[in-house]
Amino acid sequence: MSNNADNIIINRAETTKIDSVDFENLTFGNIFTDHMLICDYKQGVWEKPIIKPYEPFLIDPSAKVFHYGQAIFEGMKAYKDDHDDVWLFRPDENYKRFNKSAARLAMPEVPEDVFIEGMKKLIEIDEKWVKTGMGNSLYIRPFMIATGPGVIAAPAQFYRFMIILSPAKSYYSGEVKVIIAEHYSRAANGGIGAAKAAGNYSAQFYPTKLANDLGFQQIIWTDDATHTKLEEAGTMNVFFRINDTLYTAPTSERILDGVTRKSLLDIAKRENINVEVRPVLVEELIKAAENGTLQEIFGSGTAAVVNPIVGFSYQDKYYELPKQENSVALQLKQKLNDIQYKIAEDTFGWTVKI
Amino acid sequence: MSNNADNIIINRAETTKIDSVDFENLTFGNIFTDHMLICDYKQGVWEKPIIKPYEPFLIDPSAKVFHYGQAIFEGMKAYKDDHDDVWLFRPDENYKRFNKSAARLAMPEVPEDVFIEGMKKLIEIDEKWVKTGMGNSLYIRPFMIATGPGVIAAPAQFYRFMIILSPAKSYYSGEVKVIIAEHYSRAANGGIGAAKAAGNYSAQFYPTKLANDLGFQQIIWTDDATHTKLEEAGTMNVFFRINDTLYTAPTSERILDGVTRKSLLDIAKRENINVEVRPVLVEELIKAAENGTLQEIFGSGTAAVVNPIVGFSYQDKYYELPKQENSVALQLKQKLNDIQYKIAEDTFGWTVKI
Repeated sequence: MSNNADNIIINRAETTKIDSVDFENLTFGNIFTDHMLICDYKQGVWEKPIIKPYEPFLIDPSAKVFHYGQAIFEGMKAYKDDHDDVWLFRPDENYKRFNKSAARLAMPEVPEDVFIEGMKKLIEIDEKWVKTGMGNSLYIRPFMIATGPGVIAAPAQFYRFMIILSPAKSYYSGEVKVIIAEHYSRAANGGIGAAKAAGNYSAQFYPTKLANDLGFQQIIWTDDATHTKLEEAGTMNVFFRINDTLYTAPTSERILDGVTRKSLLDIAKRENINVEVRPVLVEELIKAAENGTLQEIFGSGTAAVVNPIVGFSYQDKYYELPKQENSVALQLKQKLNDIQYKIAEDTFGWTVKI
Repeated sequence: MSNNADNIIINRAETTKIDSVDFENLTFGNIFTDHMLICDYKQGVWEKPIIKPYEPFLIDPSAKVFHYGQAIFEGMKAYKDDHDDVWLFRPDENYKRFNKSAARLAMPEVPEDVFIEGMKKLIEIDEKWVKTGMGNSLYIRPFMIATGPGVIAAPAQFYRFMIILSPAKSYYSGEVKVIIAEHYSRAANGGIGAAKAAGNYSAQFYPTKLANDLGFQQIIWTDDATHTKLEEAGTMNVFFRINDTLYTAPTSERILDGVTRKSLLDIAKRENINVEVRPVLVEELIKAAENGTLQEIFGSGTAAVVNPIVGFSYQDKYYELPKQENSVALQLKQKLNDIQYKIAEDTFGWTVKI
């Protein structure tokens, strides 16, 4: 049942697309490298992984991914240091979370050598696509879909695990204003909010579009039962700095256990920043905004790393955040980036060389 | 932007698979007819629908359906009467719900002539696959997926609407026992539970597997905030008959507006059966089971039509339902089937001839 990196079938592309790419003007997630990894699961057995040219593939119209949304993913990045070495950041965390998502969606677990060693081999082959320089990275998208056929609502017998790679600069640009959710929700108690399940994301598109129409880029999601607890920001975890303490909600069934989130918490503690991981109430935030103790709000995630928020709206009232001379968001972002790009010493042991 | 049935491009299969199909031993949703309908949406415009041989199609690995779950569907059936005429059942209801689902998932609305006229034309071409006789039907699966590329969490620019057809006998077999959900949930307040979104279904697979392992076929979902209200049964709406009154929950953001559900309600009213559409509490059900007033529980849906439940478990206690001499579930099922198969007069005007 198990594969290993030595067993990967490699079918190299005859040409490269790299010369046609403008690496100075990348938009996030639109350009893919020359190769992709595919590993198929058929009735209980993982087949040999294949690395082959990036291209469309054939799939049956009744594949369960189309009808029942059996689909999960991860988001990761590779960074190139000044010695042209390429590094992954905490890939074990993404691997573990991927298989947790798989279990919640009744999908098979992916073997570690397919996920980790397959990823390393794929990046090694497309290594030229990882550019040096702060902000440049290679976004890594491992995902799994149910390819098994049949329009009956039950888990599939066939799955496909894939990894695709996309050169990246940064995820968000411009100032980010958010609306605090009062009606729409991201996740149910006892639901799949903690899984990186495909269906969790499209569920947000319509409410986010409504927010966009009002001039806001993202939504801060609240708990669906009472809309009193602040949970996630768009597709990121969310931090609040109030009176020099950094607050973020504990992970739960509704809240994704973000790798960037937990890394920022560890860095903040090392830097002796006061941190409290506990449910944060909307009314606390409003009070802090009104009495001047609210200093910062920021999102955290692999794509954006840290995304400062300049203001928020709640019950049709807009609260502008104060300009920060010493933004903790930006300090934490730099400290994390310095580890990821091997500029600072990685005292946590988070980076893994390819 | 609009198409019509005259504009459908038809590319007929050279051979038919029909002679290889054992129509007496069909399992639900596994066999597909000779043709399918495809209609692509590209940057604001629906292209001409195409009817072509059923076969796998090419799709980009970064298609948003795989990563963000932008995918919706409908389930419908066509029935053949004794004069070899083929009938649809309330297709306008499915069409309207499909576009409601589309809006909630930030997908484009499908034009009526593509959905309805395209469906009629497709069934006309594969008309031999609709067999006469009670219980035989052609299951119709219209669905739409985001084919647009890009691993950024935002709505796609490209979509594909498809219709595939599968000959059917009946959905469930054997006795159905259910567990009442105490922890897991199907839908959030402010979520997408009322949409026929793909992601709603895979979210149920793992909890349903846990129920299966305990010897139960389905779960009766409760509200996610308090787990005190009975909402849906598996992938069906759910009815309770207590003391000669039929109860079912009102539709909501969390509960699908089932076409079979609303049709059964109309038939029940016509038959002078007491009906109450209101939230039904778990504690009411337990009390009724204990004092002997609980008569029946059944699910309703297109695939199963009516699915009687023989018993349920709550807090590790199993409650067996009494055997019914005059099951209202089966009476309603027969009355609905008689309309669908054109055995009884369709006083409601629900049936549409192809």
